Amino acid sequence: MNSAQQPPVIRFWFEFASTYSYPAVARIEAEAAAARVAVEWRPFLLGPIFGAQGWSDSPFNLYPAKGRYMWRDFERICVEMNLPFRRPSIFAQNGLLAARVATVAILDAQAHWCPAFTRAVFAANFAEGRDISRSETIAECLVAVGQPAGEVLERAAQPEIKARLRQATDEAVALGIFGAPSFTIGDELFWGNDRLEQALSWAKHGGKPPVIS
Amino acid sequence: MNSAQQPPVIRFWFEFASTYSYPAVARIEAEAAAARVAVEWRPFLLGPIFGAQGWSDSPFNLYPAKGRYMWRDFERICVEMNLPFRRPSIFAQNGLLAARVATVAILDAQAHWCPAFTRAVFAANFAEGRDISRSETIAECLVAVGQPAGEVLERAAQPEIKARLRQATDEAVALGIFGAPSFTIGDELFWGNDRLEQALSWAKHGGKPPVIS
Repeated sequence: MNSAQQPPVIRFWFEFASTYSYPAVARIEAEAAAARVAVEWRPFLLGPIFGAQGWSDSPFNLYPAKGRYMWRDFERICVEMNLPFRRPSIFAQNGLLAARVATVAILDAQAHWCPAFTRAVFAANFAEGRDISRSETIAECLVAVGQPAGEVLERAAQPEIKARLRQATDEAVALGIFGAPSFTIGDELFWGNDRLEQALSWAKHGGKPPVIS
Repeated sequence: MNSAQQPPVIRFWFEFASTYSYPAVARIEAEAAAARVAVEWRPFLLGPIFGAQGWSDSPFNLYPAKGRYMWRDFERICVEMNLPFRRPSIFAQNGLLAARVATVAILDAQAHWCPAFTRAVFAANFAEGRDISRSETIAECLVAVGQPAGEVLERAAQPEIKARLRQATDEAVALGIFGAPSFTIGDELFWGNDRLEQALSWAKHGGKPPVIS
């Protein structure tokens, strides 16, 4: 289905509260570039999706054995990737403001600051133990990537942006997304940081079953 | 910690009802042999573990979006591995009898028929759509691997075997196991078919953080 001109596209669904989105955010650009696949960044919110399943909190908090394992598994992944990690005192953090700002970023045709901003917020959350629900934290992340913090935060509070983020979350539900990170190619869904390679392979081969290398 | 004489050991925790245990069962022997790691097969039951979390059924049935994704993901894995797959009409099947027979197998010091028997039962479940709770099905799997079906089934019904399987499940809980397949090296837990390589690497390097190859 891919023309010779345009690279295949993968949609990258991430949530700022999500642990496993952190390694995915850190590595997707290099992996996708190596596979010659374009990435569309799609911030969304897991809260409403969990809520619809009857969960008032992260399943990692609701199911302690699963949570204990996740933190250990996550720590091993960070060690392997040389990714700074300090277990945050709050989990899961409220990523609403960050997701709205990232929505501003993907609508900003002039710039490509969504990846850098997103990485800065994930570092604040999972490496620096900072409160990402505070506008001060988000403002510092914006400044760090060369964006006018006040202006962007104002834009992020506009009804248009709020509606756009809700729409992205509805779209995620329609695609069958139930966790983060997720990757989609058309309707084909891959869930989890450890499915990134398979998703990229799927994107490259235009929907044929990928072959594990 | 490993002497020069003895290969490192990985414990392989599987449940006969579990979809993702099927590819793990199919590939663990070759992968472990290539990594020069010995495998201890550990049949156990997820039912009591799910029950303790308040689940009366597989989470793939309780959470439809997760379930829909799992079947698609599972199908992709089977295609990649060339593993025959036909979605069973009953999910999750009752694997109690098969787990008791596998417990007989791992206590049988004379033979090494646990892997072959286990593969036969997983094929019956996920490739042939057969009812693995029936003793006729299990008897055929035993015959297929050259075992005296009547004798083994009689032994599987002994209180000693039932107690041994309960003990394995308790041991799984104590190790923090909450799903299948799981792999342990000492107290280090890895969950999921897609963590097999990492677990083998961990086993080989004696507890040092593994390096992704």
